[in-house]
Amino acid sequence: MMLPSLSRRLVAPLVRCMSTTAGKPITCKAAVAWEPNKPLSVETVEVAPPKANEVRLKVIANALCHTDIYTLEGQDPEGKFPSILGHEAGCIVESVGEGVTSVKPGDKVIPCYTPECGDCLFCHSEKTNLCPTIRSTQGQGVMPDGTTRFSINGEPIYHFMGCSTFSEYTVVADISCAKIPDDAPLDVMCLFGCGVTTGLGAVFNTCKVEPGSSVAVWGLGAVGLAVIQAAKKAGASRIFALDTNTSKFSMAEKLGATDCVNPNDFDQPIQQVLVEKTGWGIDYTFDATGNTDVMRAALESSHRGWGKSCVIGVAAAGHEISTRPFQLVTGRWWGGTAFGGYKSRSEYGGESTIV
Amino acid sequence: MMLPSLSRRLVAPLVRCMSTTAGKPITCKAAVAWEPNKPLSVETVEVAPPKANEVRLKVIANALCHTDIYTLEGQDPEGKFPSILGHEAGCIVESVGEGVTSVKPGDKVIPCYTPECGDCLFCHSEKTNLCPTIRSTQGQGVMPDGTTRFSINGEPIYHFMGCSTFSEYTVVADISCAKIPDDAPLDVMCLFGCGVTTGLGAVFNTCKVEPGSSVAVWGLGAVGLAVIQAAKKAGASRIFALDTNTSKFSMAEKLGATDCVNPNDFDQPIQQVLVEKTGWGIDYTFDATGNTDVMRAALESSHRGWGKSCVIGVAAAGHEISTRPFQLVTGRWWGGTAFGGYKSRSEYGGESTIV
Repeated sequence: MMLPSLSRRLVAPLVRCMSTTAGKPITCKAAVAWEPNKPLSVETVEVAPPKANEVRLKVIANALCHTDIYTLEGQDPEGKFPSILGHEAGCIVESVGEGVTSVKPGDKVIPCYTPECGDCLFCHSEKTNLCPTIRSTQGQGVMPDGTTRFSINGEPIYHFMGCSTFSEYTVVADISCAKIPDDAPLDVMCLFGCGVTTGLGAVFNTCKVEPGSSVAVWGLGAVGLAVIQAAKKAGASRIFALDTNTSKFSMAEKLGATDCVNPNDFDQPIQQVLVEKTGWGIDYTFDATGNTDVMRAALESSHRGWGKSCVIGVAAAGHEISTRPFQLVTGRWWGGTAFGGYKSRSEYGGESTIV
Repeated sequence: MMLPSLSRRLVAPLVRCMSTTAGKPITCKAAVAWEPNKPLSVETVEVAPPKANEVRLKVIANALCHTDIYTLEGQDPEGKFPSILGHEAGCIVESVGEGVTSVKPGDKVIPCYTPECGDCLFCHSEKTNLCPTIRSTQGQGVMPDGTTRFSINGEPIYHFMGCSTFSEYTVVADISCAKIPDDAPLDVMCLFGCGVTTGLGAVFNTCKVEPGSSVAVWGLGAVGLAVIQAAKKAGASRIFALDTNTSKFSMAEKLGATDCVNPNDFDQPIQQVLVEKTGWGIDYTFDATGNTDVMRAALESSHRGWGKSCVIGVAAAGHEISTRPFQLVTGRWWGGTAFGGYKSRSEYGGESTIV
C-alpha cells in the first residue's frame, strides 16, 4: 500500500480536484475486514462527507502495523467487524466539516490514533499524551457522534482506531489530525503514524534514556528498530537487539545495535543470560513484541536498583504480565508507552521533536 | 522490647562499663528463633567480639516489623534457623573491630539492613540505595567472613538481615551501622530502622509525591501510617487510607488521611471503586501489606496517564504480581522500594532528610 510521495506540483491539481467533492459522498476502493481471520477484501465503499469537527482525508501512503494484524486475527477485544483497518498513513485533507480550523483542504496530515484535544486534564498535563476525549466512541468503531462515515450499499462499515486508512478516503476527528509540513514526503511520513513514533518516544519520552546507558529491545520490527535508532541518538553505549528471526540482525546493527542476540541460542532464560553478561542487568529494556513472556524477560533483564522496562507491544486479549514483586522492590520500574508519549498534534511539525 | 530512651547522664557510665568487655565474648539474653512457626525463646547466648570492619552493639530499643514475623512463619526463602531475628532497633556501640573508623564506642547508631559501603556502583549512583556489598552473606545469615558471632554452647546461631537486634548485644558490619545524633531518643529512633523510614522514603524518594496530588495506601501498620504522614507533608490534597481493620482509621485520620476505606464494604473490586470515586484513579498508590492481590489493586487504582504504584510490602515466597499490560501501556508505572530509597548511613544524622 506504499505509494510514491507527491511533489508540490502534483498536490496543487489534486486540491483543485478535491474541492469538487467537498460536501458530497465519495465512492472509492477500500480493503474491508469482513470478519476475523479472513483476508481483507477490496471493495467499493461510500465515504460520507465529514460532519462538524471532522476531516475527510485522501490517503496517499500506508504502512502496516502488527496491531492491524492482531485485530484482523480477532485478538483485540475492541475489534469490530466489518471494518476498515489501517492506522499508519500519510494523507492530504480533502475537505473539512463545520468548525474545523486546525487544518484546511490540501494540508498534509497524519491521522493519529491518539488524539489531542488540547483542552482536557490529560492534554493539560506534561506527563502524558493520552487524550481520552473521543476514546469511548473510537473504541466502538464509530465517529464521536456514534455513527460511521463508511458504508457499502447503505450498510455501515466500522472505523478502526479513529483512522481506518486502508481506504482511498477516510474520515477522522479533527483532533486526530496532525498537520505536517507541506514538503514532508508522505511515503516516509506514514511511518510516523505509529511504529517509528512509538519506538522513538519510548526512548526519548517514556524512559528518557541517558548518554552512556545500556539498552535492550526485543522484537526487531519497525518499532524495535526505531528504539535502536533512538537509543543510539540518545548516546546509549551498549544496545542489545533481540529477536528469534536472525535475518533482522544486519539491519539492527546498521542502525546502532552493538549486540544481536537470539534467545533461542541459550538453554537458560534470556533474562539470566543478559544479567550474567552485564553484571547487574540493562539500564533500559523495551518489549516490542506484544508477547507477555517477553515483557517479563525484559523487566527481569533490567538493572537492579534503577532499571526501567517499557512495554510497547500490544498483548493478545486475556494475556497478563507477571513477575515476583521482589523485582520491583529491588529498584526496577515497569511501565509502558502508547504513541511514544508524544502529544500527537502539537509535537508534529515545525517545532516538533519527531519531524 | 521497647525500653526507655537513655539520657546522656545514663550513657556515660554505660560506655565506661562497656569498655571492660571490648575484645571479649559477651554472654547475654536473646530471643532465639529455633525453627519456623515456633514462639521465640529467650536464651543465654554468647556474642563474640567484632572482627575487622565489624561493630558490636548494645541494643537499647526494638520495634517489631512484619518481616520478622514473616520469617518466623517460614515464608522467607532466605530465612535461616536457628537465628536471632529483629532489624529495627536503636543501639549504642559497645566496641569496634579492626579498621572501623566510622563509629566509636558510645556512639548511638541504628543498624541498617541496607548497608552503604560508599564505594560500589550502587553507592555511587544517585538513583538507588541498594548497596550489594555484603548482600550474599547477609542473605545466608552470616557475617561477611562467612561465620556467625552468636553461639549457644558452641553451636552457631544465624544472623538475620545483617541486624539480629532481638538480643541484648549484636554484631553488625560497620557499613550497616548508621550513626545518629547523641541526643536522639533511641526508643523513638528504633522505628527509623525500617518501618517509618520505608514509608517516608517511598513517598519522598521513590515516588516523589507532589503538592496537590492524590495518594492511596493499603495497610495501616507503621509503614502505611508513615506513608500518610509523608504524603501530608508532601502536600497531597487527598489521602486514601485502606485497611480491613477499621480500628486503624482513627490514627490514619489523625495523621492526615482524608478518606478511610474498608475494601470489604464493597461488592466490586476496590480498584474499580477508587477509579469511579476519583474519575481517573489516584496519582500515587502504595502497598504496605505484602499481599500480591493488594499490589495489583494498588496499581490498577493508579491514575491513567501518569499513576505511579509502589510495592513496599514483602510478599510470601512464590507469590507473584500480575496485571494486564494495558495498565502499563496506558501510562501507569509499577515500582517498589526498599528502606525507602534512603542511603542508610549518609542520609541519617545532621544533614539527613530523615532525622
